Amino acid sequence: MMKSSNSPLYLLPCLLMLLLLPVPSLSADPDALQDFCVADLNASILINGFPCIPASKVSASDFFFDLSKEGITNTSNLNFNVTPANVLSFPAVNTLGISMNRVDYGPGGLNPPHSHPRATEMGLVVKGRILVGFVTTSNVYYSKVLTRGEIFVIPRGLVHFQKNVGKGKGIVFTSFNSHMPGAVILSTTLFGSQPPMPNEVLTQAFQVDDAVVNSIKSKFGS
Amino acid sequence: MMKSSNSPLYLLPCLLMLLLLPVPSLSADPDALQDFCVADLNASILINGFPCIPASKVSASDFFFDLSKEGITNTSNLNFNVTPANVLSFPAVNTLGISMNRVDYGPGGLNPPHSHPRATEMGLVVKGRILVGFVTTSNVYYSKVLTRGEIFVIPRGLVHFQKNVGKGKGIVFTSFNSHMPGAVILSTTLFGSQPPMPNEVLTQAFQVDDAVVNSIKSKFGS
Amino acid sequence: MMKSSNSPLYLLPCLLMLLLLPVPSLSADPDALQDFCVADLNASILINGFPCIPASKVSASDFFFDLSKEGITNTSNLNFNVTPANVLSFPAVNTLGISMNRVDYGPGGLNPPHSHPRATEMGLVVKGRILVGFVTTSNVYYSKVLTRGEIFVIPRGLVHFQKNVGKGKGIVFTSFNSHMPGAVILSTTLFGSQPPMPNEVLTQAFQVDDAVVNSIKSKFGS
Amino acid sequence: MMKSSNSPLYLLPCLLMLLLLPVPSLSADPDALQDFCVADLNASILINGFPCIPASKVSASDFFFDLSKEGITNTSNLNFNVTPANVLSFPAVNTLGISMNRVDYGPGGLNPPHSHPRATEMGLVVKGRILVGFVTTSNVYYSKVLTRGEIFVIPRGLVHFQKNVGKGKGIVFTSFNSHMPGAVILSTTLFGSQPPMPNEVLTQAFQVDDAVVNSIKSKFGS
Amino acid sequence: MMKSSNSPLYLLPCLLMLLLLPVPSLSADPDALQDFCVADLNASILINGFPCIPASKVSASDFFFDLSKEGITNTSNLNFNVTPANVLSFPAVNTLGISMNRVDYGPGGLNPPHSHPRATEMGLVVKGRILVGFVTTSNVYYSKVLTRGEIFVIPRGLVHFQKNVGKGKGIVFTSFNSHMPGAVILSTTLFGSQPPMPNEVLTQAFQVDDAVVNSIKSKFGS
Amino acid sequence: MMKSSNSPLYLLPCLLMLLLLPVPSLSADPDALQDFCVADLNASILINGFPCIPASKVSASDFFFDLSKEGITNTSNLNFNVTPANVLSFPAVNTLGISMNRVDYGPGGLNPPHSHPRATEMGLVVKGRILVGFVTTSNVYYSKVLTRGEIFVIPRGLVHFQKNVGKGKGIVFTSFNSHMPGAVILSTTLFGSQPPMPNEVLTQAFQVDDAVVNSIKSKFGS
Repeated sequence: MMKSSNSPLYLLPCLLMLLLLPVPSLSADPDALQDFCVADLNASILINGFPCIPASKVSASDFFFDLSKEGITNTSNLNFNVTPANVLSFPAVNTLGISMNRVDYGPGGLNPPHSHPRATEMGLVVKGRILVGFVTTSNVYYSKVLTRGEIFVIPRGLVHFQKNVGKGKGIVFTSFNSHMPGAVILSTTLFGSQPPMPNEVLTQAFQVDDAVVNSIKSKFGS
Repeated sequence: MMKSSNSPLYLLPCLLMLLLLPVPSLSADPDALQDFCVADLNASILINGFPCIPASKVSASDFFFDLSKEGITNTSNLNFNVTPANVLSFPAVNTLGISMNRVDYGPGGLNPPHSHPRATEMGLVVKGRILVGFVTTSNVYYSKVLTRGEIFVIPRGLVHFQKNVGKGKGIVFTSFNSHMPGAVILSTTLFGSQPPMPNEVLTQAFQVDDAVVNSIKSKFGS
Repeated sequence: MMKSSNSPLYLLPCLLMLLLLPVPSLSADPDALQDFCVADLNASILINGFPCIPASKVSASDFFFDLSKEGITNTSNLNFNVTPANVLSFPAVNTLGISMNRVDYGPGGLNPPHSHPRATEMGLVVKGRILVGFVTTSNVYYSKVLTRGEIFVIPRGLVHFQKNVGKGKGIVFTSFNSHMPGAVILSTTLFGSQPPMPNEVLTQAFQVDDAVVNSIKSKFGS
Repeated sequence: MMKSSNSPLYLLPCLLMLLLLPVPSLSADPDALQDFCVADLNASILINGFPCIPASKVSASDFFFDLSKEGITNTSNLNFNVTPANVLSFPAVNTLGISMNRVDYGPGGLNPPHSHPRATEMGLVVKGRILVGFVTTSNVYYSKVLTRGEIFVIPRGLVHFQKNVGKGKGIVFTSFNSHMPGAVILSTTLFGSQPPMPNEVLTQAFQVDDAVVNSIKSKFGS
Repeated sequence: MMKSSNSPLYLLPCLLMLLLLPVPSLSADPDALQDFCVADLNASILINGFPCIPASKVSASDFFFDLSKEGITNTSNLNFNVTPANVLSFPAVNTLGISMNRVDYGPGGLNPPHSHPRATEMGLVVKGRILVGFVTTSNVYYSKVLTRGEIFVIPRGLVHFQKNVGKGKGIVFTSFNSHMPGAVILSTTLFGSQPPMPNEVLTQAFQVDDAVVNSIKSKFGS
Repeated sequence: MMKSSNSPLYLLPCLLMLLLLPVPSLSADPDALQDFCVADLNASILINGFPCIPASKVSASDFFFDLSKEGITNTSNLNFNVTPANVLSFPAVNTLGISMNRVDYGPGGLNPPHSHPRATEMGLVVKGRILVGFVTTSNVYYSKVLTRGEIFVIPRGLVHFQKNVGKGKGIVFTSFNSHMPGAVILSTTLFGSQPPMPNEVLTQAFQVDDAVVNSIKSKFGS
């Protein structure tokens, strides 16, 4: 249980449960109000994070999630796919400060350079030969090719990528210390935003001319 | 005051109060929006913690609470009683990160081994001879018998107990750095959950046979 | 965007937007649910902080705010004025842990001794000769007269003041690491509260007689 | 144990202990490195908080503290005394986010108006008739006279006081959600700092003349 | 790089690096002081967490770790093994708030009931049929049998276990939102501590007689 | 004062000060140990953040900093300059969770697209016509041209830039809710790291050919 109730109606099942408990006098904290807060994704009010569904609607299945399905990776030249298990798909992680992703790669598949504004990441390679690289705020690039059973850590907010450099498919499971880490994908952020970032900013920042910027933008729809 | 208002109706008393303030131009922060957030235990929405009641309904009495009544300790063989002053009974502590409990003990009374998932605890012995013990994650057991005026500290999440080893009654006041510390009571967690934890887990974990597990479970209703 | 939606109705624009995105398969986190949470100051529910307005109502102008107007400083003998850009006036800072104030001073203007219960402060002098002072919990007083382009830092909760000791006007911009730092102004807290703090407390605390307390209280309306 | 060791020398007792453990393969986390960090008050390096003493020097007595002694209250006209159990006197609370104080009052004793920059406070009256008051950032004054067994809560950073309005002695135990809450005592902060706060600031802030300020300062040694 | 240096000696490589940077004027933050803090496990000083090794000693290999080796599971009747990748074995996670474990199970292997005082856990089943169960502070037991590719979440501080109920080996990778989550293993905490928890506490808490307690203690060496 | 001392030597001035205090019995917290922790940038030990200098070496000047000097902006085509007031240049902000930067722009000067991994940013335009833009994790671009006295907010970790689109110089003061926000500058991160990020990653991510990547890299020295 959790947030046992905030309205008299919700209190009913909780009170009934209390009557059933064998040793109620034992408990300093009879209600697990804050053990968890399974997200109510359809709540009428928007907050930082999500409101919770009532305790009476929580069941065991809420705390388990299936990431066994391979993501379809044939879209775009990047040849990879992310199946998230964050608060939007796995509401039980709401407020718990943790989430996971499954990332599938075709041969040569690339999870392109990006950063997570709200989480440090750890990743586990389950299949493939995965080149993992990241860059510090001092512009030092660290990288290694990992295989099955090897792990990596990426500090919060740093730019990183993973590329399957093996011949077959690749699978990586990533963990985050946020229920919604967010992702800033550099290519689409710079060249695919709506409305588009002005050319004069991009040409000056990257020291290229308008033609290069326009060419890249055309690939990202901006 | 606090969250002076979120709807036009709630704004009225606040605006009236502002008119009455002698030096409104003094204040960089005319509204004490976040000084406190007295819990609305009957709110229609469930969040991590509780929504607040409107400022117009907060009065001095909200910030004071009576723990002077002795708890009735004759229930069960444990012979103790917890009177909580957490957010459920003392709504003013909502979001303030603090709460208290009064724990009464009959002779031999035991607050059985438990842990608090969300708080470190400090305790003050007001009456009795209280054996306080806790175990670290390295399995080191620390303990001492305390008397009136002595205090103890239990790091967050570690298993601890208090037992009144004196001849008379005992009283302990405990403080927590959470408005709802939660309590994992090991006996009921292991042997009294609903539905029950499987026997095969308990027999293997504690290296006992089914008969022992069933016997203990029968005491805890699972 | 943000909190893309919590009800089916809110989901519509978000789904439409997803259809328009050029490379949806790229994104590990298609929804920027937690990038920001622009405060809904008129929400029907009060929480610690504010609920958010729906993503469909957020526009660029929400993230920008005008502090270019000089505050009127002719009220009271303090001859200063605070224009806040905290969550109440600049709702975009809700949950982001930051806010600013513009403080205008006439000649001799004083932002009187006060503390911020929820934030450390940094300040930038833009005009005037500003005497900045604060006192530590060890009763050490630190101070300096600052001019244009100089900055100061005041640790959270410590008493401080700024006084324009120059001949002309003064302007200071202050930053806080809270969206609503709060302000405890010592003069009005002690002598201007409603209801008033008892004289017996003030005479004993400050070692003055009733006449002095009554005289000061009369200036602050308590 | 804790911080089992950072130098080879410290590792020795820990390794020996590991050899003695009956089921070392059980433990996902054989070292309770972070269960606690008993402060080394004489460390050669100063950090935010304190470094820890080595695990081999921690014993049960570190986690218990004696607040049973009545503080001597005959100093000054305030007639009260604070016996702290914070990190400086009770090093075990280092990094645990909690501490306590014992406050003794003679008849009429006053814990004068002050605020804690780093903690919310809860207090328990053990003896006496204690007037407890605090002021919000909206200048609302809340107060009540409490007797034995009653408790109060003061949000972080707000100005508050306690005065024993009974005929006999008074005792209050206060708890804080910080190992070192700090205290800003308004009288000594304003009128007793070293060096002193300028008279021109105090006369303008409190709308009194120099004579009043000088008179009060003379009582507080500034 | 990181903590570019705190002594003149450490500053040298950092200054040299700065000279080599092509566009130093670009950088608001030329030093990635806080990107990471790779733990110095042999530091001469003990703090909450670990001091860092100097930047000049950090290399790419610090951020990668090998969990591909199967743990040996033939010790004890529990038939499981934990290979941790927390700060003690994988120093790069120091201060980053994340860590992982590899857990290997023989047939019937059990990771016995335990809780993590400092972290929420997510787990990924890579092999086997794993029964995962946990109990809330309201004594509700949630469980499910998971197979390859399925995940679970356990809120911080709650008691949980995993048991391989399949016929072959099992592998689970667990993630934590702490660099050192700690583990309170209920069996060894209650029955295997040094010194042992008193029998009178255990018999009263679990409502068993001394013989049962002594029998269990004999299995856990206490 | 602060961290009054950790060695007997440091204790001396503190004890002397205590003797001088007029009302020592007043103070629940005689030592302002944690009011601040002025960074010791040359400490012999590296931690997350910095150790502190002893209290006896702290003076008023530590808490004030000069940002009145115009930064030299003629380096590189970006024509801007950052003068930081973070913990490395202004050690008093250590552990206080706040810092500032002064950013000077020549005509057309650009603070190129970057993100701060550890802070939300607020900025104040003091001179110039400054185009401020940022992109959310949903690829929405928000922007506005600001003039003197206008402010902006950028959520933590999101990509943003400022460009002086006026004819004269520009000045912006930025504030951060971290003592060391860090900066990920996209151009140098992608094209100027040491060692360089592989071409195959960049060509695939941005859908350009090697010639374009090599051309940009040549501008950033990678």
